[in-house]
Amino acid sequence: MTANLFADLPTALPDELVQVLAAAPGVCIERIVSHGHASPPGFWYDQDQHEWIVVLKGAARLKFEDVEIEMHPGDFVTIPAHTRHRVEWTTPDVPTVWLAVFYRE
Amino acid sequence: MTANLFADLPTALPDELVQVLAAAPGVCIERIVSHGHASPPGFWYDQDQHEWIVVLKGAARLKFEDVEIEMHPGDFVTIPAHTRHRVEWTTPDVPTVWLAVFYRE
Repeated sequence: MTANLFADLPTALPDELVQVLAAAPGVCIERIVSHGHASPPGFWYDQDQHEWIVVLKGAARLKFEDVEIEMHPGDFVTIPAHTRHRVEWTTPDVPTVWLAVFYRE
Repeated sequence: MTANLFADLPTALPDELVQVLAAAPGVCIERIVSHGHASPPGFWYDQDQHEWIVVLKGAARLKFEDVEIEMHPGDFVTIPAHTRHRVEWTTPDVPTVWLAVFYRE
């Protein structure tokens, strides 16, 4: 009945691993596992949905047009729709586990 | 810009502490801190919204009409709307930190 956010963490990942944990029309809850991944050079996310995101393991640097933030376990941030951002860095030695909630107004 | 889910954990709590981290029509993301709290005897939650919930610190036992589950950090479960449930127990010695996402179809 339950599952665990920290279970089945892959040891090698060619790409980020995105898994939908729950979804309904207007909301999507995802576990994202990064392993040294960053957004491709010059790539910026520009999403129709708001995103609330927390780092639960590992660490990451998230870049916005005007600021870059470093996130450690428990750190969360809300990214309003169409706020351009990119993942600048995630820990190369251990997986970074994110929990993301995408939602609409 | 960021805040941390594990910051400002109160050391003594007369009641569960519920904080809304993000909200929009149809979705609400909350941090809930319990400290030995349980639902009152005979009380069952019966919600109009679906609830996705994860324990991030501490531990808890969640009771449904047909089953009781014990949850440890990382364990998550989806509780469909109108699925009766109650919190049977949370760790009395350390705070239990939950992250809950309430959402509608």
